[in-house]
Amino acid sequence: MALEGNAAIGQSGGPTMVINASLVGAIEAAREMPQIRQLYGALHGMDGVLHERFIDLFRENDELVEQIQYRPSAALGTSRIKPNEADLERAMKVFMAHNIRYFFYIGGDDSQSACHSLAEIAKSYDWEMNIIGIPKTIDNDLVLTDTCPGFGSAARFAAAAVQYVSCDAEAFGNCEVVEIMGRNAGWLTAATALGRNEPMDGPHLVYVPEVTVNPDKFLDDCHSVYDEYGYLVIAVSEGFAFAESEIATTSQKVDEFGHARLGGVGQALADMVEEELGVRCRFDRLGNMQRSFALAQSQVDLDIAYAVGDDAVRRACRGETDVMITIQRKNNDPYEFECETTSLSSVAGQTRYLPDEYINDEQNGVTEAFLEYAQPLIVPRKEYPPKLPKYPRFQRFAVEPKLEPYER
Amino acid sequence: MALEGNAAIGQSGGPTMVINASLVGAIEAAREMPQIRQLYGALHGMDGVLHERFIDLFRENDELVEQIQYRPSAALGTSRIKPNEADLERAMKVFMAHNIRYFFYIGGDDSQSACHSLAEIAKSYDWEMNIIGIPKTIDNDLVLTDTCPGFGSAARFAAAAVQYVSCDAEAFGNCEVVEIMGRNAGWLTAATALGRNEPMDGPHLVYVPEVTVNPDKFLDDCHSVYDEYGYLVIAVSEGFAFAESEIATTSQKVDEFGHARLGGVGQALADMVEEELGVRCRFDRLGNMQRSFALAQSQVDLDIAYAVGDDAVRRACRGETDVMITIQRKNNDPYEFECETTSLSSVAGQTRYLPDEYINDEQNGVTEAFLEYAQPLIVPRKEYPPKLPKYPRFQRFAVEPKLEPYER
Repeated sequence: MALEGNAAIGQSGGPTMVINASLVGAIEAAREMPQIRQLYGALHGMDGVLHERFIDLFRENDELVEQIQYRPSAALGTSRIKPNEADLERAMKVFMAHNIRYFFYIGGDDSQSACHSLAEIAKSYDWEMNIIGIPKTIDNDLVLTDTCPGFGSAARFAAAAVQYVSCDAEAFGNCEVVEIMGRNAGWLTAATALGRNEPMDGPHLVYVPEVTVNPDKFLDDCHSVYDEYGYLVIAVSEGFAFAESEIATTSQKVDEFGHARLGGVGQALADMVEEELGVRCRFDRLGNMQRSFALAQSQVDLDIAYAVGDDAVRRACRGETDVMITIQRKNNDPYEFECETTSLSSVAGQTRYLPDEYINDEQNGVTEAFLEYAQPLIVPRKEYPPKLPKYPRFQRFAVEPKLEPYER
Repeated sequence: MALEGNAAIGQSGGPTMVINASLVGAIEAAREMPQIRQLYGALHGMDGVLHERFIDLFRENDELVEQIQYRPSAALGTSRIKPNEADLERAMKVFMAHNIRYFFYIGGDDSQSACHSLAEIAKSYDWEMNIIGIPKTIDNDLVLTDTCPGFGSAARFAAAAVQYVSCDAEAFGNCEVVEIMGRNAGWLTAATALGRNEPMDGPHLVYVPEVTVNPDKFLDDCHSVYDEYGYLVIAVSEGFAFAESEIATTSQKVDEFGHARLGGVGQALADMVEEELGVRCRFDRLGNMQRSFALAQSQVDLDIAYAVGDDAVRRACRGETDVMITIQRKNNDPYEFECETTSLSSVAGQTRYLPDEYINDEQNGVTEAFLEYAQPLIVPRKEYPPKLPKYPRFQRFAVEPKLEPYER
């Protein structure tokens, strides 16, 4: 007998260019499910759950919902709240008060952890509900999935940006360092090599957090490239650090999950290069554009993002819970995939690093195997809008709270 | 009787996404001109002229030349050399040694100054030659022209970037400052308003170098926007400074033209906002992508850039000299234009600032009149390549030097 009741969905962590495609995939699937009576959108993720800030997604106009999928960054708002024990208890009370029997959370590994904790506490409350994690991260660092929705588009943006900035550096005969997101995993930085068509093209050197490099070897490599090509472009991960080095490259600030706010290594490398080579070395940080620059959306990424949202709802309605949707690659080029699942406990708190076979022996670039992995993920959108699009917002029909306000 | 001989062309200053369209326009026109025997490309602008680093552009493959127009950033290389008296004399010797009777220089107002000086010294040497300046700058700050090739594409990039980063800031309920190029003119920063479709969209506040704002008014405006919309996005020019303020916002470094290396104001504003509002305020600098992010190329900008290169060659061959090509707008939307000219002395060393009628009364945004001016310039390219393109380089058939080496 099907579990009947309401469903809630939220978005969490750093948004992506396609995170709303997952949301729209879930909304459109939920509309087909007779056992889902209402679908509530939690505003600002867990924050919205705790404070009963829900909107009624079934009341939103169909056409607007369809268009929302192309809007970059979380249309419901996002948060970086890491729920503590009291928060989890509160969330349960909210779920019960609103008869929420299905919960979907679009996020990275911290969000999958939160989902798993909710699934555990629901069991202890004997509250029958199905909870499914929908993967999302430009960092591509969730384990047990071929790729993470959000990565393909971010990779396309980063590869394009480095390709273009390389043309500019070449025109000047300058050096250039580009700093790229990805936390402690090098996937996004590695992807910048996709814009390289021949040895003279940048990025000439790629440094990811997974490699062990000493500063002398680094400067030797810089000399070699500059001497050969008359310019030099370096792509470096925000999480990169030299082996056993005193060179301070990261900020001391931490975010709400307790992770260090990364960044700073790019400028440090640029200063080193300028001093060593005596040539101007510029610095660009791709910044928040990596998550949001929708002109670079990848069609494959949009398709994957939509599919994981859609599949999560269908599986929950078939009784699955405490799992995250994963992507299994079925064909390389053109990319074909199927959605599978893995237990939330298998992904929570885990990081998928760039494997050794994707990093070259010199520890300063990627291998052909990596390019074959990543290339099919960055195909552009089938159609571009003729003008800068008007991205709609939800109309946000509020759901009436049922509990006393929550202090947090 | 037509002036017969060789021609040379160079690119100068900060490149743009369409600077090679001007180069290709000139090459393709020169091929039709019987009086132009050879067309030499000066590598790295004036530097190439002084050191006789020329390549034979007529030997380049037609198809490759056609493709080069889409490559962002100067395909011949660029330089920031400001020629002194000795350099001008040397340039004349090089022109005479190579029988160069036509010279085209693609650049901003400093490059137009250099062109004018060359035209003057050519007269004093009784060396008959026609020199035409081809406008280029993302800053859009050349006088006496409707727009500058390079601006439309940079404007499209900046408007898109701010639109996207705004979506990200809205999702977090954060504040965000985006720092934009343009030196002492606010055109490019003003263009970020093109991505705004309704009052809730960022950028909510736009600060250009032309305005007079005091810090208290600025912070009041920040409070108002944040209180109303729950997030705040500010676009600020690298050249902006508060009126009579001690707040240090620009670097002390200077470039080769003696201009200050701008930048730093964005981070300063972000720090002010974060402290005053008590909300995280992020900072993004659009950096070198503003000149090179070719995925944002504007078709109108490509067309204009090609036209000014083409027109310069045709006019020089008809005997015109000591002029810069200008753009006169003939229809607003769709944009239609004609090429005209103005004397080099009328543009050299001049800056076109954003006029008062394009800045709102509050001094924190743009007017409808500005949007009507700029909107037709940012239409996207008719076709996007299906993958990240392979941008060709010239084969670079070297021209034999004829003089002793030059020290500089």
